[in-house]
Amino acid sequence: MIKKQLEHRTIREFTNENVPAEVLEQLISVAQRTATSNGMQGCSIIRVTDQEKKKQISEVCKQEYVTRAPELWVFLVDQYRNERIAIEKDNIESVNGCDMDKFTQGFTDACLTAQNVVNAAESLDLGTVYFGSVLNNPKRMCEILNLPKMTFPAICIGFGYPNQKPQLKPRMNMDFRVFENEYKVFDHYLEELKEYDEEIQTYYDLRDANRRVDSFTNQVLTKAKNPNPVRVNMLQDVRDQGFDLKVN
Amino acid sequence: MIKKQLEHRTIREFTNENVPAEVLEQLISVAQRTATSNGMQGCSIIRVTDQEKKKQISEVCKQEYVTRAPELWVFLVDQYRNERIAIEKDNIESVNGCDMDKFTQGFTDACLTAQNVVNAAESLDLGTVYFGSVLNNPKRMCEILNLPKMTFPAICIGFGYPNQKPQLKPRMNMDFRVFENEYKVFDHYLEELKEYDEEIQTYYDLRDANRRVDSFTNQVLTKAKNPNPVRVNMLQDVRDQGFDLKVN
Repeated sequence: MIKKQLEHRTIREFTNENVPAEVLEQLISVAQRTATSNGMQGCSIIRVTDQEKKKQISEVCKQEYVTRAPELWVFLVDQYRNERIAIEKDNIESVNGCDMDKFTQGFTDACLTAQNVVNAAESLDLGTVYFGSVLNNPKRMCEILNLPKMTFPAICIGFGYPNQKPQLKPRMNMDFRVFENEYKVFDHYLEELKEYDEEIQTYYDLRDANRRVDSFTNQVLTKAKNPNPVRVNMLQDVRDQGFDLKVN
Repeated sequence: MIKKQLEHRTIREFTNENVPAEVLEQLISVAQRTATSNGMQGCSIIRVTDQEKKKQISEVCKQEYVTRAPELWVFLVDQYRNERIAIEKDNIESVNGCDMDKFTQGFTDACLTAQNVVNAAESLDLGTVYFGSVLNNPKRMCEILNLPKMTFPAICIGFGYPNQKPQLKPRMNMDFRVFENEYKVFDHYLEELKEYDEEIQTYYDLRDANRRVDSFTNQVLTKAKNPNPVRVNMLQDVRDQGFDLKVN
């Protein structure tokens, strides 16, 4: 199992083979057993099989290969179901329980569930890809998937049988990312990351196989200077979905 | 592997056996290989070994068994490292890239990494427990772990060799949680969940083994009516850590 985890790489191209129904059932059982905040089960999954909807989602993601993922699963923050349960139970119009805490619990549930499904899928030799890019336009995702209030698309995965063998992408040394008892600040990150910067430039991204990737620190600078403009209103999108977010 | 995932249950009590160094190294390698938004590696881990700090964290969590977890790992949103890289690279005082998008990317990275480590740990017969309750007081967590700006405690896990065998906790039928192409609203949740409500009352929580747990729908109502008061300011806490959150 750990061997599979250490071999994890993103797969973006798949064979035409469908994922068998019994495999899908196993993956759904794994999703069901995933740890969940307070036992509240605040995550739901939408399996997208409609080709037109896949196309619409690929437009949100700005990644056309979304349309070619044999399986496309969107993991939702879902507090709608529990809100409805509370309303029915108490015979009232609404409860006011959907704060940032509940949003975060649902978001956490969604991410844990997605990774659990990814691990199960990879153990069965399926290849997987995360589409965090569904957050480019949460409003549009809500329209496409007909999402009620108190739900929110947290993350999306595509999977199927791999039709490519990408190189393992180098990652920075964990000395920069694992600390004991307190956060460790380094004096000179550029200097310390020099080796990693060189290593990552030996990696060829299959999405653009003809040129080397940029150094890690250059990628970081580019991202820092160019915040994703379509995502600046994400918090407002969360609020528009009925979550009561308070900032003083 | 899937067998292990389907057997997942929370373990809160552990034997005195320490987790061997080579196992810890394997788990750190798994963390390193976890999928990460835009390749930015926006999650760091603090391994808490100091018993006094464990006690302080247990006070945040209001769960005294935190102190007895042989391993206690806090998964952070970490945009500090990349902020520093960009500043050093561009020879400037600050970049203004830490918006809600970057916070969300780091939060997602942290959750995916935690679940990947949990799966690896369980494959080695370790038992695990999530402590979402570190979010009871993010400010205090930042003090305890000496966290710089642009970092935030997302989730925490405890693990070790299990010293208890809890019953598998019943979960609701996935027909309520997995939909095709669009969200499915049910007409009467209470009615539909009756069977699950009965099932969950046959489950005995080891934390209070002398009485049956409440029905699921009763638990939901209790949570809905009693939002966690210590968490209402979470968004402000995120902002205070230097993330530039915008709500219109």
